[in-house]
Amino acid sequence: MGMIGGGSGSFIGDVHRKAASIDGLIELVCGAFSSDPEKSIKSGQALYLPENRCYRSYEEMILKEKALSEEERMDFVAIVTPNHMHFSPAKMALEHGFHVVCDKPVTLTLDEALALESIVAKSGKLFALTHNYTGNALVKQARAMVANGDLGTIRKIQVQYLQGWLSTAVESTDNKQAAWRVDPTKSGIGGALGDIGTHAENLVEYVTGLKIDELAADLGVFGEGRVLDDDGNVLLRMSNGAKGTMSISQIALGEENNLAIKVYGTRGSLEWHQENPNQLITHWLNDPIKVYTPNGNNLYPECLNVSRIPAGHPEGYLEAFATIYKNFATHAMAVLAGETIEFPDYPTIDDGVRGMKFIYAAVESNKNNAAWTTLD
Amino acid sequence: MGMIGGGSGSFIGDVHRKAASIDGLIELVCGAFSSDPEKSIKSGQALYLPENRCYRSYEEMILKEKALSEEERMDFVAIVTPNHMHFSPAKMALEHGFHVVCDKPVTLTLDEALALESIVAKSGKLFALTHNYTGNALVKQARAMVANGDLGTIRKIQVQYLQGWLSTAVESTDNKQAAWRVDPTKSGIGGALGDIGTHAENLVEYVTGLKIDELAADLGVFGEGRVLDDDGNVLLRMSNGAKGTMSISQIALGEENNLAIKVYGTRGSLEWHQENPNQLITHWLNDPIKVYTPNGNNLYPECLNVSRIPAGHPEGYLEAFATIYKNFATHAMAVLAGETIEFPDYPTIDDGVRGMKFIYAAVESNKNNAAWTTLD
Amino acid sequence: MGMIGGGSGSFIGDVHRKAASIDGLIELVCGAFSSDPEKSIKSGQALYLPENRCYRSYEEMILKEKALSEEERMDFVAIVTPNHMHFSPAKMALEHGFHVVCDKPVTLTLDEALALESIVAKSGKLFALTHNYTGNALVKQARAMVANGDLGTIRKIQVQYLQGWLSTAVESTDNKQAAWRVDPTKSGIGGALGDIGTHAENLVEYVTGLKIDELAADLGVFGEGRVLDDDGNVLLRMSNGAKGTMSISQIALGEENNLAIKVYGTRGSLEWHQENPNQLITHWLNDPIKVYTPNGNNLYPECLNVSRIPAGHPEGYLEAFATIYKNFATHAMAVLAGETIEFPDYPTIDDGVRGMKFIYAAVESNKNNAAWTTLD
Amino acid sequence: MGMIGGGSGSFIGDVHRKAASIDGLIELVCGAFSSDPEKSIKSGQALYLPENRCYRSYEEMILKEKALSEEERMDFVAIVTPNHMHFSPAKMALEHGFHVVCDKPVTLTLDEALALESIVAKSGKLFALTHNYTGNALVKQARAMVANGDLGTIRKIQVQYLQGWLSTAVESTDNKQAAWRVDPTKSGIGGALGDIGTHAENLVEYVTGLKIDELAADLGVFGEGRVLDDDGNVLLRMSNGAKGTMSISQIALGEENNLAIKVYGTRGSLEWHQENPNQLITHWLNDPIKVYTPNGNNLYPECLNVSRIPAGHPEGYLEAFATIYKNFATHAMAVLAGETIEFPDYPTIDDGVRGMKFIYAAVESNKNNAAWTTLD
Repeated sequence: MGMIGGGSGSFIGDVHRKAASIDGLIELVCGAFSSDPEKSIKSGQALYLPENRCYRSYEEMILKEKALSEEERMDFVAIVTPNHMHFSPAKMALEHGFHVVCDKPVTLTLDEALALESIVAKSGKLFALTHNYTGNALVKQARAMVANGDLGTIRKIQVQYLQGWLSTAVESTDNKQAAWRVDPTKSGIGGALGDIGTHAENLVEYVTGLKIDELAADLGVFGEGRVLDDDGNVLLRMSNGAKGTMSISQIALGEENNLAIKVYGTRGSLEWHQENPNQLITHWLNDPIKVYTPNGNNLYPECLNVSRIPAGHPEGYLEAFATIYKNFATHAMAVLAGETIEFPDYPTIDDGVRGMKFIYAAVESNKNNAAWTTLD
Repeated sequence: MGMIGGGSGSFIGDVHRKAASIDGLIELVCGAFSSDPEKSIKSGQALYLPENRCYRSYEEMILKEKALSEEERMDFVAIVTPNHMHFSPAKMALEHGFHVVCDKPVTLTLDEALALESIVAKSGKLFALTHNYTGNALVKQARAMVANGDLGTIRKIQVQYLQGWLSTAVESTDNKQAAWRVDPTKSGIGGALGDIGTHAENLVEYVTGLKIDELAADLGVFGEGRVLDDDGNVLLRMSNGAKGTMSISQIALGEENNLAIKVYGTRGSLEWHQENPNQLITHWLNDPIKVYTPNGNNLYPECLNVSRIPAGHPEGYLEAFATIYKNFATHAMAVLAGETIEFPDYPTIDDGVRGMKFIYAAVESNKNNAAWTTLD
Repeated sequence: MGMIGGGSGSFIGDVHRKAASIDGLIELVCGAFSSDPEKSIKSGQALYLPENRCYRSYEEMILKEKALSEEERMDFVAIVTPNHMHFSPAKMALEHGFHVVCDKPVTLTLDEALALESIVAKSGKLFALTHNYTGNALVKQARAMVANGDLGTIRKIQVQYLQGWLSTAVESTDNKQAAWRVDPTKSGIGGALGDIGTHAENLVEYVTGLKIDELAADLGVFGEGRVLDDDGNVLLRMSNGAKGTMSISQIALGEENNLAIKVYGTRGSLEWHQENPNQLITHWLNDPIKVYTPNGNNLYPECLNVSRIPAGHPEGYLEAFATIYKNFATHAMAVLAGETIEFPDYPTIDDGVRGMKFIYAAVESNKNNAAWTTLD
Repeated sequence: MGMIGGGSGSFIGDVHRKAASIDGLIELVCGAFSSDPEKSIKSGQALYLPENRCYRSYEEMILKEKALSEEERMDFVAIVTPNHMHFSPAKMALEHGFHVVCDKPVTLTLDEALALESIVAKSGKLFALTHNYTGNALVKQARAMVANGDLGTIRKIQVQYLQGWLSTAVESTDNKQAAWRVDPTKSGIGGALGDIGTHAENLVEYVTGLKIDELAADLGVFGEGRVLDDDGNVLLRMSNGAKGTMSISQIALGEENNLAIKVYGTRGSLEWHQENPNQLITHWLNDPIKVYTPNGNNLYPECLNVSRIPAGHPEGYLEAFATIYKNFATHAMAVLAGETIEFPDYPTIDDGVRGMKFIYAAVESNKNNAAWTTLD
């Protein structure tokens, strides 16, 4: 793995590195960790990389790695930069024959996302998007339960992703994470929408197997001087007629990473909370409440395959993140071995395009006073 | 207390009787428990009432009780019939000088509610509406925290009231509760909206002290053959600029009485869940999470006054309901004694009118594809 | 019902009155509310009792009520005094033909308990002991599950009753509740043991249907100047070979009324928490966790009969307490009607004797450095 | 890092490898993964190790690695074999100049532990014992709160480690984990005592800073044909006069890894649950309940230093385990650099000896019908 972005002080770069390492399948071999060449090289050294694999720019990295022997060169690129720096390195990496893992949202604009969709297709390379929460074992169980019809027909959905860290003007402090997220030139047209709303959107569509047909979004810009949404309340209409709400916020004071989903069907319902990820609570027409735990009883294989450790030993954020990397790496190795994997089970460029359509639909709906707006 | 409705087999009549009795202030002395005279009298006898206080109709009850000495006659009327049978008995009772306690929603139509508002005013009598959940000790604490500015300026609200008991066509079975609730001639224009949505609306306005300015409602009618909403997703805009969501449902399979509220301010936030009513969870900018319990530490007097038993001994639905009765009875006794109570703290005809406006606004918004609709 | 004790300022008298009233079966008709005649009469008047039914002493009450017509006189006596004032009024009431409801522990000493056992037997009258927690719907469910063999053979038990209100020297303040509880002339030889340990003991034996064969108790006296235990850790060996722990405390700072039980069998296990009484959590060899709620799915009739209100509307302390009164009153009415009830399902003098044996065994074990001590 | 044990099919070897890798400080460079030379080598290859670093025995590994240059050779040995295979490799590694990380309990017998204590001292090398649960951020917070006197004087303790996986005779199936754990030649004289009891013992002493002075243990052997304890109930007396209970079990059906601790002091109390590790619940004399979360507000530096990711993103079992490795590796690097770390904060040989004394005291107490037995 070669990394683009994620130099010292970065939050998400470190997460990607830890997550990629957990399962012993992936090794960081090189990186262009910063747009500042000095910083890039220093960051690589701090990670114990050999000097000649610490690059001054991602362009240099892609070209020099390409020139190495197949044995030696990186197998794929991980892009962990702010949104505006996703498209160009992804394009170059794919066009030079490297698979790509990319942080979300996939690009700065919807146009970039659509362009990247074509580039991926043309390249024949793999593209993984780190909607990491779908890597949780019990999210897999939830998806399998819906897919197998256990809940009957889905009628109602609640999804939320609530944070409070932008309750105050942290972007005016030296908080790098906040600074670029409130800046449309780096984040795109969505604020909370892009940063966490896309996770909520992806989770809903992943778990239910349904598409959001149309939405009505009432966005808020509560932080003084901000131009991007830091809060949003959204009505959802799903492809099968189900209805729902989505609530996202970065000014929900006190919330940490309260991503949660509830799905109600005609035969059963389920709820899952990211902050307590090792419980899946389900309700049934004629049975008592049933609570599933990873590696507990009566789980679908899609869930059992995911857990690394025995029941009752909590897995968390990094493990879920690692599952995205593991499934991607397994797919990449299968491709190398000429094998086929029917459902590699990690988010792809399709999820990326979908996320951008979600952002654009929500922003447009909000401009029209929360008028219903389709995602296609 | 004389009761109108609540004959054998009724659910809510029994609740009113139990709730009224808990604090030893109120005694059931008479009743017209059914529109069927036979059934009314039998119901009264089963409640150990003397034969001459078991009436054949509410009209008879009001007239005969009026004719009794002040000492002997009932002090007030409790109306626990379906919605379409609220207005007439309430009007007659008030006009004959009796205070009234009435179940919610206050009337069948908004017009009736507005008419009743005038009648109450003219009568000079007390009118209590049993939005019982606001009787919980920690709902009082929540309200006091907001009122005292502890949370700062309110920015975001989530409220929900989710039930699942109408997930299947129970109205086709012998479920009397379901039958009238899905019948617009008895329920009015709102289904879930009237039955539980008004509780959610009342809770939001009670706790935050804010008014819902406008809403955008997407209602669902999922049960086959139904004409009234059994599900609703609503965007809220509050009088101070706060935004929020409301989700109500009677087809949220597995939910029992999941009424819950979250309020986010600029300095703190709180959440309360009816099914776990003895915890108020709060978050703060610079403090750890604080959880309040009834009769625990650091409570406002408004909350301390409410609990009947020591900390750790759960109070529940009946106790909260009883608090409405207790505060109403206390007010009635004060009036009798010529005393004034500044804030008697029970829902009144104003709350009733507000609830009907909410129902009408939501239904109208839904007709217009969830267009923003004001409540006034 | 005639009440002995429970005058103004009393905590538990008020609880008994509220609990007795909830189900509309019992009316307070007279009382001797205090050993101070003035206070007794004033207390009765504050409860709206007629003057001639407010008695100056329990002896007067029993004699004068006895002299009334059957129609008019109280049906039973409720004794809500401190422990040292249980035996004499209970004895007199029984011997004058009144049923008795008595607070726990049943008497001051084991000898008194054994004597009372004979008196009850000889009188042919009913005797109920208010181990109120066993009145919870889900405690009934737990008992039924064990009795029906759902859990298989019971192997392990954890029970605790933890409070923190005696963490500081509240008995030196004007806290009447604390004052008599730390006084052996009023409490007997057990402190926390008698006040809450007997609840824990009763709960274990009620739920499991097993007896505590022997115990090893390490008691603590942490409060300065106290002579009675305010804390205890106990090993249990049950009649079927199961083993367990009991932890009781009134100096467990921050605990409110944390009574909880876990029972592990060869096929399943269960746990119940008094502070969250509307959930029964169960685990199974080959099934996911199942959580039962009152009036939810798959409950035993013993549980369904108990709940007064629909699923999701919490019942609490008073309702559980009321169930003891309801079952007792139902039994008393059946007796009056010459009918038989197979299992009236409320704690009796047998539970009272058992509780005293528990206290005495624990105190003796503790004297012998936690040596194993039998309960018989 | 060179690993001893942990070949294919091992559970804990994989955990150690993942945990060691998370923070990017430690690389697996060699191993003797099995006592079967073939299996050892195959296991190493499956881990992508170079052939010449896959050894046929631990003796070979220690000798050959010793012969490598300092640059190249492993920095330390991780011993992840069953208990009876801890002492010899640890001794040899230490005596050949390697630091050691060892799984718990430290050895098969107390004599071995005492011998190893001397060997560690003589060697001057570091020895870490993987009592991994103490690596949780909020366990550090709990310890710091007690150490700083926030809770006042500790009076009461509850600790438990409950599992249910030995509820049935899984040792008769092909469950390798179960087979050696019920075999005294591989486990030592303690069954559940050694496997999980030592974790409970270590957690109590780590969090409270107190020592267990004496204990009274009632052990159970519930599984048919077993000779070692699979259940235990223990009374504790601590070095400062505090009292408590410990409950451990591997036949507590349905329990997964329910390690939990409650500590009650004169000013506050705390509780922590391993299965929900990202919450520390605290109670106070005059404040509401406060709940701490990793990277939340008002944490001690000892806790803040531990979390790798922002608040609300759960860390779990592997992260806590990784913290032991991180602190150990940091210490080893400091030693290499000639620096001193005042409190390296990982369990050492002292904890290992303490754990063995605990096992021996409990077994002896149990032989004497739960007589009080000291740990020294």
